[in-house]
Amino acid sequence: MTIRPATRDDAEAIWRIFHEVVAGGDTYTFLPDTPREQAVDYFLGPGIASWVIEDEGRVIGMYKLIPNHGGLGSHVANASFMVDPSAHGKGAGRAMGDHCLDQARQAGYEAMQFNFVVSTNTAAVALWQKLGFEIVGTLPKAYRHRQLGYVDAYVMHRFL
Amino acid sequence: MTIRPATRDDAEAIWRIFHEVVAGGDTYTFLPDTPREQAVDYFLGPGIASWVIEDEGRVIGMYKLIPNHGGLGSHVANASFMVDPSAHGKGAGRAMGDHCLDQARQAGYEAMQFNFVVSTNTAAVALWQKLGFEIVGTLPKAYRHRQLGYVDAYVMHRFL
Repeated sequence: MTIRPATRDDAEAIWRIFHEVVAGGDTYTFLPDTPREQAVDYFLGPGIASWVIEDEGRVIGMYKLIPNHGGLGSHVANASFMVDPSAHGKGAGRAMGDHCLDQARQAGYEAMQFNFVVSTNTAAVALWQKLGFEIVGTLPKAYRHRQLGYVDAYVMHRFL
Repeated sequence: MTIRPATRDDAEAIWRIFHEVVAGGDTYTFLPDTPREQAVDYFLGPGIASWVIEDEGRVIGMYKLIPNHGGLGSHVANASFMVDPSAHGKGAGRAMGDHCLDQARQAGYEAMQFNFVVSTNTAAVALWQKLGFEIVGTLPKAYRHRQLGYVDAYVMHRFL
């Protein structure tokens, strides 16, 4: 697997993966019918640094890295990850997580925060804990899960 | 004191108060030199519901009420408040807080979350606790306070 900066040429792959991921209604707040333009902008919009991960020449996931807040909070990074559901189990999430932490350090960030990790997304919670993140907040019933109804979301954090 | 919906005619008062508040570098992540356009947009931009509080005909504060997330997280509201530093102690924050909770209930929100309450802003923390909010998360060293350096920020929450 290879990770490289995303470009406009990745828009179709990003849209395909985004659409597959949000269709589940179990990890992101985006509605299943989120339009293509919004999906592509989320990863390729102005000022957004993003990367894709390829497996045998095919894009199977992407992530973005941005400041979590501006100004006096801009030393804390935020990142979002998506992996093609059909490519789960290959370690793409882990590889992108490691890559993202390196990129964030290089960019001068001092910490990374995820604002909204759905508590029932146990694979994601476990991955971030393995990568050194801690749960620093619990948002009660903050997510309307497609199958489970209202579930908590976590704020996760680590210093870099 | 009277609270009424904000209009474009309030832009000058909103800018004046915003500028005074962020000059302190102790409550918001906005830089002290945040430009007027960004300040006014923050409260009067498209899709943002906002209100001002008047004391003897003069605007002394404002707040906005928005969804904290879109889609599957849109049942949780977010709000931001600013009070003219020269008008502190009149109860404007408390009055706007009560008003905001009512407006959020009327709009159908089920909870309200503040994503970033600077921990050393003890007046704000105490006010929100008085209004039923709890600290549900602590973001370590998330704020570069002008006088104190790195300080924690809180995530605060209440159901409606």
